[in-house]
Amino acid sequence: MDRRVRCYDCGKTYRLEERQRCSCGEPLWFDTDADAATFEWPDDDWTAGMWRYADVLPVSATATEPMGPVPGATPLVRAADLDEYAGCSLHLKPEGQNPTGSFKDRGTAVGVAYGRRDGHDWIGTVSHGNMALSTSAYAAAAGLEAAVFVPADTPTERLELIARHGARIFRVEGDYGRLYAETLALETDGGRFVNSDTPLRVAGQKTVAYEILEQFRPSAPDAIVLPVSSGGQASGVWKALRELETAGLLDSEDVPRLYPVQAAPCDPIATAYREDRATVSAIEPGETIAVSIANADPPSGTRALTAARETGGAVVSVSDEATREAMDRLATTAGLSVEPSSAVALAGVRELSRRGELDADDEVVTILTGSGYKERYDVDVESRTRTIDLEAVERELAAVVGS
Amino acid sequence: MDRRVRCYDCGKTYRLEERQRCSCGEPLWFDTDADAATFEWPDDDWTAGMWRYADVLPVSATATEPMGPVPGATPLVRAADLDEYAGCSLHLKPEGQNPTGSFKDRGTAVGVAYGRRDGHDWIGTVSHGNMALSTSAYAAAAGLEAAVFVPADTPTERLELIARHGARIFRVEGDYGRLYAETLALETDGGRFVNSDTPLRVAGQKTVAYEILEQFRPSAPDAIVLPVSSGGQASGVWKALRELETAGLLDSEDVPRLYPVQAAPCDPIATAYREDRATVSAIEPGETIAVSIANADPPSGTRALTAARETGGAVVSVSDEATREAMDRLATTAGLSVEPSSAVALAGVRELSRRGELDADDEVVTILTGSGYKERYDVDVESRTRTIDLEAVERELAAVVGS
Ligand SMILES: [Zn+2]
Ligand SMILES: [Zn+2]
Repeated sequence: MDRRVRCYDCGKTYRLEERQRCSCGEPLWFDTDADAATFEWPDDDWTAGMWRYADVLPVSATATEPMGPVPGATPLVRAADLDEYAGCSLHLKPEGQNPTGSFKDRGTAVGVAYGRRDGHDWIGTVSHGNMALSTSAYAAAAGLEAAVFVPADTPTERLELIARHGARIFRVEGDYGRLYAETLALETDGGRFVNSDTPLRVAGQKTVAYEILEQFRPSAPDAIVLPVSSGGQASGVWKALRELETAGLLDSEDVPRLYPVQAAPCDPIATAYREDRATVSAIEPGETIAVSIANADPPSGTRALTAARETGGAVVSVSDEATREAMDRLATTAGLSVEPSSAVALAGVRELSRRGELDADDEVVTILTGSGYKERYDVDVESRTRTIDLEAVERELAAVVGS
Repeated sequence: MDRRVRCYDCGKTYRLEERQRCSCGEPLWFDTDADAATFEWPDDDWTAGMWRYADVLPVSATATEPMGPVPGATPLVRAADLDEYAGCSLHLKPEGQNPTGSFKDRGTAVGVAYGRRDGHDWIGTVSHGNMALSTSAYAAAAGLEAAVFVPADTPTERLELIARHGARIFRVEGDYGRLYAETLALETDGGRFVNSDTPLRVAGQKTVAYEILEQFRPSAPDAIVLPVSSGGQASGVWKALRELETAGLLDSEDVPRLYPVQAAPCDPIATAYREDRATVSAIEPGETIAVSIANADPPSGTRALTAARETGGAVVSVSDEATREAMDRLATTAGLSVEPSSAVALAGVRELSRRGELDADDEVVTILTGSGYKERYDVDVESRTRTIDLEAVERELAAVVGS
């Protein structure tokens, strides 16, 4: 079980306790190639969630019972009514159906289970919201203390969800990128930070791609489109595809193209792609409605960029206006309410189709990373609402539905 | 597929189009005994959600593609850390992981699919919130217009989630019970009301019990505890148990006892149980934090009461204080945030153990009907939060986690 962590770029390996980032500067991930080589699609019940892929995870759930929330096994939804809008054959992976309403639960579950197995008594994270909430919930279920570090300007309203689970919350004044890096470099006892692109988190995040590929059997999607912030999730998806190739469960010519998408006001990875640069560097960010993915200095940016290039994909960014429209389409056409940071992915699909990267025959899976129900948005309620008397119900109904 | 609806009490049958309530005054449900007789546990993939039980539903999903959200297949969580608090061996069924964050999605999915199959162009509902949201989302995905009727004093904040999906919202002045009954009696074209205890909704709601019993195989739980409002969900669970008995998949001595739980300030069903009455009648309600289940005149109250009695269970009610405590325990011990109306069920488990209805050896499943993340609650955020400088991270962390 004590697998080493490896640099995707230079190949060096380490123990996880040694470091979470390579001496070359690039991020690490678990070296699970040996496990992947013998991996078979599991027979287990899907209600075990992502733990059905325990064979390729650095820790299993059963080692850490009791665990409250069960992440993963989200549905794969064919959204044909959005094909025309998307410009391809569209499938949606609504990760908002995870226990705390976002994709972060997958990585959290692995991080918490691993810490518990190590006998830790706390777990830390640096986050804008979803990851902090997720970490707080799973830590509570595992009996660990959660220490959560958020930017100083995070609204109290958002912290309320996190506080419910009994986490210790720190609003930190200062640069978010530095906070992220420095927490990982801390010498700590009895716990560790599981930030968004760390090896434990990437291990959990990769399970979404295992699920997509299993749900798509016997064929494979042509492309996977997903929002990108730190690059941790894109790294996980790329890793899963490489492992499934190693396992012989995915032919190399069938590997889906990866398309990370960013919000245009804060798009360092898309910028590097556009400018054909080898690595991603920090940018000066603008304001965007996609707050959860507004990372101006993504720690796994270069890895995500490499994932897109190696799979024949691309990195694009979209305007807030396009994101708002995609969010509205998802809610009114597919019945799915997502946060702006998720809608970015559908807006990205549309943009990729416009550019000819995707076409009508392509089977495209879009990862919708988080539920929209945890926040209130600026929706015009009044124009859709009337106050009426009980006696007027029949008349009002007839006027609306034309019966 | 055109199954008749039957009165559980007097046995009369009707076509659904004829009426949704028996001439004897009691509610109807679909007569699926013939289907149940040949039902086997399905081999289908759990990611099909509740549609894997299509054999015992009045409509299948495939008849109505495309459908956006996929309800059901929620996990069953063993919550051993709460056993002492609960006074039994506790299992949780977190229905908040359904696409719109509540158990209502199951009934909605059946109602919308059935309407679509009938060529309808609208669907209506009367609701305090969860059901209105659910109906709006599924109607949007199916291309139906949703007409949603809520009490006039429903806060705009809550309506925002519903408005996202493009529903028509009516705030109705006047008695909620009358509104509920009168909408079902309307002569309508091109659509129908699927209120909370109607046959289509009960058909969908029963799938939660199919899942629980399937997830518990090869044994069966001793008891199922759930919040009750209209009585529709309790009716569905009871119906599922009867059908599984008919199918030969549940021995009659293994049928779990049903325990519907109410909030003490508004507990007409618990009152009827306590006073040993044959039927449930309307009460004068008090205020409760469990707003989603504050139904003073439950249309399936007598059916829920009968379900409890026939299975050897009971109906109890709990104080708001007990509900608040249960809600906090779920968030801080099991990592699950639920709405007060769901926490009522765990408070009920504790009360039932205190009364000797449940004991430490009993395997008890508690249905947590809805996610807590859709609302903000009165949680003390400030006492758990500190604002610090980046330089102080290590010191602050050490103080908290004792490293
Ligand atoms: Zn390296
Ligand atoms: Zn009758």
